[in-house]
Amino acid sequence: MLGHLLRHADTKIVLLILDGLGGIRNDEFPETALEAAKTPHLDELAANGLCGRSLPISLGITPGSGPAHFALFGYDPLAPENDIGRGALEVTGVGFELLESDVAIRGNFATMDGDGVLTDRRAGRIPHEEGVRISGKLDDAIHEIDGIEVIVMPVREYRFGVVLRGKGLSPEVEETDPQLTGVKPLPPVPRVPEAQRTARIIEEFISRANEVLADEQKANTVLMRGISSKPLIQPFSERFGLKAAAIASYPLYRGVAGLCGMKLVETGFSVKEEFDTLRSIYNEGFDFFFIHIKKTDSYGEDGNIEGKIKVIEEVDANLPMITELRPDVLMVTGDHSTPCALKSHSWHPVPFLIHSTSCGKDDSTAFNERECDRGGLGVFDATSIMELALANAGKLKKHGA
Amino acid sequence: MLGHLLRHADTKIVLLILDGLGGIRNDEFPETALEAAKTPHLDELAANGLCGRSLPISLGITPGSGPAHFALFGYDPLAPENDIGRGALEVTGVGFELLESDVAIRGNFATMDGDGVLTDRRAGRIPHEEGVRISGKLDDAIHEIDGIEVIVMPVREYRFGVVLRGKGLSPEVEETDPQLTGVKPLPPVPRVPEAQRTARIIEEFISRANEVLADEQKANTVLMRGISSKPLIQPFSERFGLKAAAIASYPLYRGVAGLCGMKLVETGFSVKEEFDTLRSIYNEGFDFFFIHIKKTDSYGEDGNIEGKIKVIEEVDANLPMITELRPDVLMVTGDHSTPCALKSHSWHPVPFLIHSTSCGKDDSTAFNERECDRGGLGVFDATSIMELALANAGKLKKHGA
Repeated sequence: MLGHLLRHADTKIVLLILDGLGGIRNDEFPETALEAAKTPHLDELAANGLCGRSLPISLGITPGSGPAHFALFGYDPLAPENDIGRGALEVTGVGFELLESDVAIRGNFATMDGDGVLTDRRAGRIPHEEGVRISGKLDDAIHEIDGIEVIVMPVREYRFGVVLRGKGLSPEVEETDPQLTGVKPLPPVPRVPEAQRTARIIEEFISRANEVLADEQKANTVLMRGISSKPLIQPFSERFGLKAAAIASYPLYRGVAGLCGMKLVETGFSVKEEFDTLRSIYNEGFDFFFIHIKKTDSYGEDGNIEGKIKVIEEVDANLPMITELRPDVLMVTGDHSTPCALKSHSWHPVPFLIHSTSCGKDDSTAFNERECDRGGLGVFDATSIMELALANAGKLKKHGA
Repeated sequence: MLGHLLRHADTKIVLLILDGLGGIRNDEFPETALEAAKTPHLDELAANGLCGRSLPISLGITPGSGPAHFALFGYDPLAPENDIGRGALEVTGVGFELLESDVAIRGNFATMDGDGVLTDRRAGRIPHEEGVRISGKLDDAIHEIDGIEVIVMPVREYRFGVVLRGKGLSPEVEETDPQLTGVKPLPPVPRVPEAQRTARIIEEFISRANEVLADEQKANTVLMRGISSKPLIQPFSERFGLKAAAIASYPLYRGVAGLCGMKLVETGFSVKEEFDTLRSIYNEGFDFFFIHIKKTDSYGEDGNIEGKIKVIEEVDANLPMITELRPDVLMVTGDHSTPCALKSHSWHPVPFLIHSTSCGKDDSTAFNERECDRGGLGVFDATSIMELALANAGKLKKHGA
């Protein structure tokens, strides 16, 4: 779409995402976390740049993390081809490179009783090391079913991934997770005739997994979810002419970034570790950096405003690690709002700031909801963010004579 | 599109465009030209009307003048059918009425050496009178090629227009301008088989033009650009039910207005002359007037803020010439921003004001970027301007019961 307007410029763009950043004020919360937090560095950027409110999908529509990130990355979050199955997301997120003919499944380790009735859908939230051990056990025991290669990999804690590799597979199979305990798992039902063989393979996988896991105390069965194939997403390099790196520690965000063709860089979990990673790769040939901070969302979901404030202040305190690199364009926003007042994702437009030599200034003097409401960008679609970034980086030609 | 909502009202709309009006603030330019200019008349309109920021295409996309004006006039600036060839624009701009079967070409007079190598793509920027003389010489010498009528007309200075008129022509021919000197012009290459004959005619035109111009010192050859045909644009009268007049002195803007079906009125170049033209035709049966002031853009491109301020103040000083006519709707904006800080067109939303008896007031007290940022219209698509105008002029019915 932008193809004919793209031009090369030797400039770098940093997109810093504080997950679930936006908040709302009400009687219980007279200030949002971002308003209450002490953020001198972000405020300085806001005072010297442009602010506004980014709308992930549209007023009233609350996005999940996947669609919200697709919107940030300039892809239509409502387009069917961008409705990515969780299986494909999770295995991409742990660095697995899917083929177009693969079927990817997100698995839960779970607990069942002697009658095959589910007693815990997350196997008592076994620790990550247990998940690694048990998925290794499955991967060692099951290599192939009906001529189809089977690959099992750990994701996080009780979550693992399965990839079926071979010809003639279809992702059109229903999940086996009944979403409640006290009942047996559902059978993997094919939605279309072409998926009958895939459904049988998944059934056989579950049956063999039950045998392999029979001696486990907690993780003695599996639930198969998000059965999906690799989406056809135009890579970032082609869509925007950018060589992009993703610095994110959680699999889902790594998954979305990976599906968009970003290089997934290894990083630690803390703000400082992520910013350190940025510094270490800043001159390694990339011209776009996506940095994802997760904890703002987690605290928002918990309604823990002190926790959310603390993460924001931690980001602000470490921000000079980014600004010292003098990126040509620095944008700070969230993928969606997660107001402590609501303890959940919400539809509210997200505080947004952009800082570059060509963006100009508006009258906003700090980075928070109140100031962004009077920013020069108004309320705008998150899908414009990449165009804005490219324009400010001098990477877009004028449209028309 | 609006057709079923249109209704007649005996009211008049004035759309005053200051080309490239918008600016940005930065350390070097702590105020934009519009903020710095003394504009008591515009400020009074803003205080008694509504302000906002008009977005020519979308955040991040910098428009050329053609697409920017199509957006102002309510046509989708990205629609392929509105991507007008420069040839069609320029000949329409000098008042030529194209037929749908015509092919229009924008020509440059240029200088070549004895070996046919280009030494100046603009023939030393010969003055307008020279361009008129030389295009007259060509028009006198070349009437017809291979059964196709050839019409040559002056445009401005070194630019001229050629229209090929006859059956079986195609605009799908590559330009001959190599965009640099020290090389020979390119041949007119057909992009599709149906354009082979047109390409041969253009080749023959160039060859005969070279003979006719052999005795010229500077303009001894021609470059053929923007080879195009008349676009199929729904006329303003049909689209909006308006009888529209265009008061613009530059060919490109006259061209866009002409292609939208506006009457191109003869006018002088100065602000006062243009406003005088408005007064002289105000009661001649028109109900929409487009007035185009060019110099704000030119000074923006030069980074000359004093010049830009002066033009804005000149417009303001003469504004009573318009307001005394008491138009039912008066709108003032630009087609795009041309910040002195950037010396080029930019993507930034453009200050906008509307004044009518039914528009109401917001809290803006002056007409400039800062006040428009807090205006009641927010940041909105320029393609809404015509609907806004019609509504405020009482020319739109309610949609639905």
